[in-house]
Amino acid sequence: MRIFGIDPGMTRCGIGVIDAKDSASGTFRSADSLRLYKAGVIRTDTSLAQDERLRKIYDGIDSWLNACKPDVMAVERVFSQENRHSVLGTAQVAGLALLLANQHTIPVSLHTPTEVKATITGFGQANKQQIATMVAKFLKLEVQIKPADASDALAIAITNALKPPINAYKM
Amino acid sequence: MRIFGIDPGMTRCGIGVIDAKDSASGTFRSADSLRLYKAGVIRTDTSLAQDERLRKIYDGIDSWLNACKPDVMAVERVFSQENRHSVLGTAQVAGLALLLANQHTIPVSLHTPTEVKATITGFGQANKQQIATMVAKFLKLEVQIKPADASDALAIAITNALKPPINAYKM
Repeated sequence: MRIFGIDPGMTRCGIGVIDAKDSASGTFRSADSLRLYKAGVIRTDTSLAQDERLRKIYDGIDSWLNACKPDVMAVERVFSQENRHSVLGTAQVAGLALLLANQHTIPVSLHTPTEVKATITGFGQANKQQIATMVAKFLKLEVQIKPADASDALAIAITNALKPPINAYKM
Repeated sequence: MRIFGIDPGMTRCGIGVIDAKDSASGTFRSADSLRLYKAGVIRTDTSLAQDERLRKIYDGIDSWLNACKPDVMAVERVFSQENRHSVLGTAQVAGLALLLANQHTIPVSLHTPTEVKATITGFGQANKQQIATMVAKFLKLEVQIKPADASDALAIAITNALKPPINAYKM
């Protein structure tokens, strides 16, 4: 199972791709089974027009999807309560990710920042450094993934991998 | 000059297309020269998943662009200050419109709601009924365009048509 995580952003859009194995019983996925596949960042310059930036991000995610051929996509959910200047741009990039998941026929789910932090560190208010430390531990890496946007995207993919599969609730 | 106006929205995305002629001197465009080409609404059901809704709107705008072959696109600017629940979805649809403008190599500009209202009615706080009345007058229509989303999209296209062209500032 290849999981494609996206930390949406207009200036830096983090991409983190991991492979995860189902347990023999198929009811849960062990953190031991997680492996880094690829991670990076799609950047666009603030001097470009907005339509040009969105096109570059769309083409960039599309290329990543064609290269990685993931089974599922996981995107960080954006909230309008966040009163950052950049929130609408972030929402637009998340929208492109959802569009591309649909165009590539990849199931997609959204995870809240609190859910990601709690899954990765056990603490819903964890900072970026804690996230980066735990992502490296989960993926058995000797060095941390940088920049933080790539590490955050891996955290989203790991969250998706470790959440209980739907059939676990049916038992 | 064919102008493609978009009033972005996830449940109802208004589309309004007009034709406008440059004046003989080329420095301004007369309101008399405006003609309705086509208007309508792309709807998506709230019961659909978000990726499915974005895909339908993307495909819908794409079909309209292929059918109308506009020269320019005009999109209403979305503000994060609007504390509506739907603001992020509206921003995502505006993002798809910008992406499609770039993919179709159509110049695109954004217009604020206040700019549109002031251009169409002379009053930046005009209501939807005033907008619909004035859109019908500008386009010499005997009946108003409905629903309001289609009329609003025409108002955005008209605003784009009547704004001074760039070379007017150079005189």
